[in-house]
Amino acid sequence: MTNTAEQKPAAAPRRLDPEDAQHALAAVQECLRRQMLVESLVHRQEQGDAKATLVEDLVHRQHEAELKALVDDLHPADIAFILESLPKEERQTVWNLVSAEHDADVLLEVEDWVRESLIEAMDRQDLVAATGNMDADELADLAPDLPPDVVAEVQKGLTEEERAQLLEAMGYPEDSVGAIMDFEMVRVREDVTLEVVLRYLRRLHELPDHTDQIFVVDRQDKLQGVLPISVLLVSEPDSEVHSVMNTDFLALNPLDSDADAAGAFERYDLVSAPVVDDQSRLIGRVTIADVVDVMREDSQEQALSRAGLQEEDIFAPMVKALRNRAPWLLFNICTAATASFVASQFEDTVSHIVVLAFLMSIVAGIGGNSGNQTMTMIIRALAMGRITPRNLWQLVKREMMVTLMVGLCGSLMAALFAWIISRSIWVAIVMMAAMICNMLVGAGIGVLVPMLRSRFGKDPAIGSSVLLTFATDSLGFFIFLGLATVFLL
Amino acid sequence: MTNTAEQKPAAAPRRLDPEDAQHALAAVQECLRRQMLVESLVHRQEQGDAKATLVEDLVHRQHEAELKALVDDLHPADIAFILESLPKEERQTVWNLVSAEHDADVLLEVEDWVRESLIEAMDRQDLVAATGNMDADELADLAPDLPPDVVAEVQKGLTEEERAQLLEAMGYPEDSVGAIMDFEMVRVREDVTLEVVLRYLRRLHELPDHTDQIFVVDRQDKLQGVLPISVLLVSEPDSEVHSVMNTDFLALNPLDSDADAAGAFERYDLVSAPVVDDQSRLIGRVTIADVVDVMREDSQEQALSRAGLQEEDIFAPMVKALRNRAPWLLFNICTAATASFVASQFEDTVSHIVVLAFLMSIVAGIGGNSGNQTMTMIIRALAMGRITPRNLWQLVKREMMVTLMVGLCGSLMAALFAWIISRSIWVAIVMMAAMICNMLVGAGIGVLVPMLRSRFGKDPAIGSSVLLTFATDSLGFFIFLGLATVFLL
Repeated sequence: MTNTAEQKPAAAPRRLDPEDAQHALAAVQECLRRQMLVESLVHRQEQGDAKATLVEDLVHRQHEAELKALVDDLHPADIAFILESLPKEERQTVWNLVSAEHDADVLLEVEDWVRESLIEAMDRQDLVAATGNMDADELADLAPDLPPDVVAEVQKGLTEEERAQLLEAMGYPEDSVGAIMDFEMVRVREDVTLEVVLRYLRRLHELPDHTDQIFVVDRQDKLQGVLPISVLLVSEPDSEVHSVMNTDFLALNPLDSDADAAGAFERYDLVSAPVVDDQSRLIGRVTIADVVDVMREDSQEQALSRAGLQEEDIFAPMVKALRNRAPWLLFNICTAATASFVASQFEDTVSHIVVLAFLMSIVAGIGGNSGNQTMTMIIRALAMGRITPRNLWQLVKREMMVTLMVGLCGSLMAALFAWIISRSIWVAIVMMAAMICNMLVGAGIGVLVPMLRSRFGKDPAIGSSVLLTFATDSLGFFIFLGLATVFLL
Repeated sequence: MTNTAEQKPAAAPRRLDPEDAQHALAAVQECLRRQMLVESLVHRQEQGDAKATLVEDLVHRQHEAELKALVDDLHPADIAFILESLPKEERQTVWNLVSAEHDADVLLEVEDWVRESLIEAMDRQDLVAATGNMDADELADLAPDLPPDVVAEVQKGLTEEERAQLLEAMGYPEDSVGAIMDFEMVRVREDVTLEVVLRYLRRLHELPDHTDQIFVVDRQDKLQGVLPISVLLVSEPDSEVHSVMNTDFLALNPLDSDADAAGAFERYDLVSAPVVDDQSRLIGRVTIADVVDVMREDSQEQALSRAGLQEEDIFAPMVKALRNRAPWLLFNICTAATASFVASQFEDTVSHIVVLAFLMSIVAGIGGNSGNQTMTMIIRALAMGRITPRNLWQLVKREMMVTLMVGLCGSLMAALFAWIISRSIWVAIVMMAAMICNMLVGAGIGVLVPMLRSRFGKDPAIGSSVLLTFATDSLGFFIFLGLATVFLL
């Protein structure tokens, strides 16, 4: 978004559309497709003569120019989106056309699983050029993916202070505030007037992105307060900073979790927040842009982990995809086999009353579904911080009661079905009893497992659902076939 | 966050902590618990005499004062969080203690399912007082929950313009940009100098929240460009607006979906964006605070809907909870019964080889798990806008190949298990074949269902997983028992 107004003050504003990126992706794909079509056409003629090569070359160059024009016109974030959405080969074609000045921004915007392949395709010189002008915190994000000699080369170009910042940023654990903070802050002293602050800002020529507040520090760099830009703009220029600054503000610690920080940004509607160390010295800043990324990543991770997946390039090579998916499925086969082994202990019962074989999967399945509802509620309440030791017991009682009530209705339906296919009132009664029991088992597991996992500092969501299914399957079979063995044989 | 610095310029800054809300919740709960303890103690003595009543009254008042002090000190967002986390009775106790000046903010912050009960507890006068000073867009959010006579009363106090805004805001569909936009904008003309703009801002005394840019409009209110505050601050005061404004900016349409808008905010790191009508007249503004709420709500809705739930008050009355959960479970019982009915058609086969009864649930379950992985990938790619007609076929081929490979490994394990419990090489072979087939069924459904749902404009996530389980269960039973009938009998 550059300033193009100077030459044409009456020009109509160019409206960016929220769906720009998708349209651009379609255009790039169309361009790539045409290029491939022509190439394959020329190849198919299989004439070794110079003319065909010439034509091919010409057409190729024309398409390349067209593609380049398309890509050059895009925001780096949109280029990143397109690169992520293309198969590897086409991705490289497009990446080679991105002009060098955008390299750095695109590298910072793309998701981790694409960045690797982009960096591989760049030579050392391009990499040094692209990363040479990055801020310390940006460099820290990229450093793990860069060849060590490039990092060393770029470090040489940093000031003492930047090098210290780089080291600091790389030292914080992954999901901490320290890992997402940047170092671009405007600091002022509290005893100057706003007039002076305004002059100082004008001399900076450019403010850091998302500067909605200026940090007021003392000589030791201790944070004394914050001066919102909106206050700066509406206050009298001869007021002193300390008379208009806020001393009630949210300050983060670099070791706070990024999810907690995101919660605070959401609750207090923040755009930026200072990060201070234990001596309340200002060491960095977190902006809403970082927080939005954290929120998006967390919700994606959650959705994926529920299916036992990690972030995957939709065009990743087969081997990678296998490594991503197989462990979860193999694990599920083991738990399913265990449950089926439990059931097989009742072979006698089932061979006497075959219809039990068809009913037992209903008991197991509905127990799992019902437990999943309870678990979803509990995981959500845990994530929001709503569960305290004091209301836990109330919650458990409530979940059990709700499950019992739903179980009564549901098991009546299931019993009716059991009676229809077995014509035995006793099978129906066993079905009903087993189903209610197994739903209560599901509710119990649905409360217990996330609570225990969160008590021991693990993410309550991941893995809980496997345990739940395992329990409701095995116990569902056991309860149903057990009751049948006792009462029906 | 008020300015308290004027009197005590050297005061240590009060550090807000991201976990403040949780701590406050625990404190409020503790206070409520002590109050209840004392009350029940006094009650238990069952002395009708005046002294006991007096003591009770005193203690009660003391606790109330303590609670009030606690609550008054909190940010409205934290009060909202606490109200959401308490059972209904305690919620009302705390709500009655919230000072009237915070009523409006808290009402706007709490989730829909709590707001209703809070409004019920307020009398007409309090409601009019609380909503009287709201902006048109805030009032529009609340209006559906308010008694009609209160809305009518408050409308009388609005200006002509505000009333028009209220009507406009209430007219937009729920998930549109129009429903989240506000009307607090600073507008300037392009032919004035920055000096004039700065003077104009100072006269406003207060800027709207999240003002990171000023909108440049012409006489017809058509948006000509945007003037970022950071540009305003660093440019020479005698420059004219049109020479420094951006004409490349994102403008939203009120009918754009709020999720698309959120995507754009995320991609372009925006803090606010103008909303214009089809004649590019400026009609409103969306801020990052609204967008963050949209993102959080969407991810919550997704997590809940996957378990067949809607947003539920964790202390909702039993009847409400039943209405929320029963339909999904009853529906699942129907699909499970159908699958089991399919299986029961093979009663003969199963009664001959009972071990099939224990193996068939593995085939069904793993097909579901594997299909769920594919479906999760596809839903995610759809949500990101990565799927275009051109790469759809590549994706389908890839998913099928990955599934086939995982299926080969997995089915070997399953076949081994089948051989162990049946000691029949033929049962093992049937198991292997059925499992691979059913996993391919799962992958097919996992691609098709979300694609079709999204093609017909429905949310691809909701309902897809029921259909998937239904298909992999029924077809899993059918394929496995069918193969067994053909090859084993």
